[in-house]
Amino acid sequence: MTQIESARAGVTTPQMASVAAAENREPEYIRQGVAEGTIVVPANRLREVSSACGIGTGLRTKVNANIGSSPDRAVVDEELAKLHVACDAGADAVMDLSIGGDTDLIRRSILDSSNVPVGSVPLYDAAVKAVEAGKSVVDMTPGEMIAAFETHARDGMDFFVVHCGVTRESVDRLRTEGRLAKIVSRGGAFAAEWMVHNEAENPLYERFDEILDIAKEYDVTLSLGDGLRPGCLADATDRCQVQELIIQGELADRARSAGVQVMIEGPGHMPLDQIAMNVQLQKRICRGAPFYVLGPLVTDVALGYDHISAAIGGAVAAAAGADFLCYVTPAEHLALPSVQDVKEGVIAARIAAHAGDVAKGIPGAREWDDSLAAHRRARRWDEQINLAIDPETARQYRSGNMPVLDDVCTMCGKYCSMKGIEEFL
Amino acid sequence: MTQIESARAGVTTPQMASVAAAENREPEYIRQGVAEGTIVVPANRLREVSSACGIGTGLRTKVNANIGSSPDRAVVDEELAKLHVACDAGADAVMDLSIGGDTDLIRRSILDSSNVPVGSVPLYDAAVKAVEAGKSVVDMTPGEMIAAFETHARDGMDFFVVHCGVTRESVDRLRTEGRLAKIVSRGGAFAAEWMVHNEAENPLYERFDEILDIAKEYDVTLSLGDGLRPGCLADATDRCQVQELIIQGELADRARSAGVQVMIEGPGHMPLDQIAMNVQLQKRICRGAPFYVLGPLVTDVALGYDHISAAIGGAVAAAAGADFLCYVTPAEHLALPSVQDVKEGVIAARIAAHAGDVAKGIPGAREWDDSLAAHRRARRWDEQINLAIDPETARQYRSGNMPVLDDVCTMCGKYCSMKGIEEFL
Repeated sequence: MTQIESARAGVTTPQMASVAAAENREPEYIRQGVAEGTIVVPANRLREVSSACGIGTGLRTKVNANIGSSPDRAVVDEELAKLHVACDAGADAVMDLSIGGDTDLIRRSILDSSNVPVGSVPLYDAAVKAVEAGKSVVDMTPGEMIAAFETHARDGMDFFVVHCGVTRESVDRLRTEGRLAKIVSRGGAFAAEWMVHNEAENPLYERFDEILDIAKEYDVTLSLGDGLRPGCLADATDRCQVQELIIQGELADRARSAGVQVMIEGPGHMPLDQIAMNVQLQKRICRGAPFYVLGPLVTDVALGYDHISAAIGGAVAAAAGADFLCYVTPAEHLALPSVQDVKEGVIAARIAAHAGDVAKGIPGAREWDDSLAAHRRARRWDEQINLAIDPETARQYRSGNMPVLDDVCTMCGKYCSMKGIEEFL
Repeated sequence: MTQIESARAGVTTPQMASVAAAENREPEYIRQGVAEGTIVVPANRLREVSSACGIGTGLRTKVNANIGSSPDRAVVDEELAKLHVACDAGADAVMDLSIGGDTDLIRRSILDSSNVPVGSVPLYDAAVKAVEAGKSVVDMTPGEMIAAFETHARDGMDFFVVHCGVTRESVDRLRTEGRLAKIVSRGGAFAAEWMVHNEAENPLYERFDEILDIAKEYDVTLSLGDGLRPGCLADATDRCQVQELIIQGELADRARSAGVQVMIEGPGHMPLDQIAMNVQLQKRICRGAPFYVLGPLVTDVALGYDHISAAIGGAVAAAAGADFLCYVTPAEHLALPSVQDVKEGVIAARIAAHAGDVAKGIPGAREWDDSLAAHRRARRWDEQINLAIDPETARQYRSGNMPVLDDVCTMCGKYCSMKGIEEFL
């Protein structure tokens, strides 16, 4: 049985029990969420991770780090270094989005080395292999696409993205919408290019049942990709995006019916005031399925600082009910991220996720802040730094700026307000 | 006449006209806002800046950078370097918060060199001078406090902070509240320590009329400090904070009646879900006075990354109507910021301010995003980078990661979605 089938049969799997322990929740809460599809526990039955990861309603908002090669930079060891820095920085999952070099080797190396769930986009692999065989992306056969899903599932992938919401219906709406940025999703672009060139429906949509069969066999969680996600503020919440969401919702129903866990991917670029509404819309249309958002980026102008733009949008999304934040690094829109970019992206996304968790009242979230604040007030520096979201960086700041009085900092020195007020109040 | 008196008399000053031009607003809109107190134009009559800065309802959200020395680090040239990097990065105002070294020299050097409005906290200066004279902070005389305001006004200060909301009434509530972090505002701590030690009312509150006289003479805009602002999530929106806000509101009325422009300072540390409510409360209690927020920081755990925590809170505050964001640097809670910290703080706050401006529909805000997005779609790299919030950083990323094909980036290389889709849609 898959996780969702077990949950429906009233069985709490070891993975659900592990999630319950990590979240300070009753195992029954997790089992019920998985049964209803409001929680997913991505766990390929061929792979074991040290601790299972639950994503969904009532749980700590999780953070994913995208790693992987590109045609311009494909170094296995570098991707493994990104995996390790992401996990050390606290990523809850990683996705291997490799499209350069030996993608099979990189994928398998990451799966071998990762202690957190790993996701992928098998369509990329089918496209890359077509190009390597001297063809074009639009020359992939539907069979090659499906085969890529089978390969990734057999390799142990815990979740994978299916760009099945890019259909004739949604692409037709894209043509009439007058979008500024058209398609910015790599998988969405591959699917749309294929459909236009071949004058045919998206094979991932038409042959969705075959993907469900594969997902069920290996218990791979589906992440229904948002190939038409807005790529700039101007395109946010337009008819193409919402059309795709409706299709994602319908396919989510089919996945659950087939005994396959499913989550929904979302924007993208979006003005701040549209984010909460989008989360509410997704939850309604997709019947409470976990929402996995990329950012959202609240401005298009923060080139080189898109981790900050995404942290703003991610925090607001998480507070409104988004369950899973895909990090954005400072290199977004400019380059394949470096190892350092990966770390900065993970930390920024974790800040956003935690701010959202405090706001939506996830049990235990605020305690972290309160503990740190108590140490801060008492000027217990080591304890404060050890509790910080990134103790290493905090410690570097401190050790590089030691004050004259050792229980304050160089901002106020002997005029420290917390120290000064102590004898009076 | 002061700016507000002129506005009430129907006169549009050159400063109001300059603000109107910068904001793409009718001069009459600015004049009316200044007359009603929903907009301030900080401009000491003894000092001229190259372009006036308007802060308030309907205008672009502004960003302030705090600079200044501490007892542990007081180097005039370093503070001037911070001034220049802050202005280059796009700060709309700076505050000199010096409490170390020759504070008179630092203040006057900054005033001489700054092309943007400058603010200060004269109370700090009175406290530092008391300590330098061998006394304690609590030994300042009320006359010395008032004298510091006179000195700063005469030096050309465009706005200054008065910690006049820390009164017997609000300190009594602080005693009974059971706060976790008590007082974290430096000025708030000085005022409270003085009151407790001297068993007397806060002189800045008792002698508020004298401060108004000084402010009116030089046309200094008052920034009513939030000495009891929450210093951790646990203390947010408590009775002390709201008590102080009520007093700030009453004093704001008195300032306007006296012909003095006034804005209100706000939190601080605050869970994300309380921010919009706080902005609404401030606008109501203070009859639409501009709201100047410090952050707010949406978590206490982001030590070393508080510029990101503040960007999240600042964006949400700006979207809800906050008018002026005080930046927070990565060094916050750890050290006096370096020149590089200042730059990062300004950029993060500008991202937040702009995200807020897009959300609240400030005229012209979204055009910036749309222009950049159009260049991005067309892969016009130079134009895109030139429009970025920090072209220098964006250019460094690009030049350090040149792709094989020159119209894409190393993230996707030849698989660029925007390029790929172009021939099909």
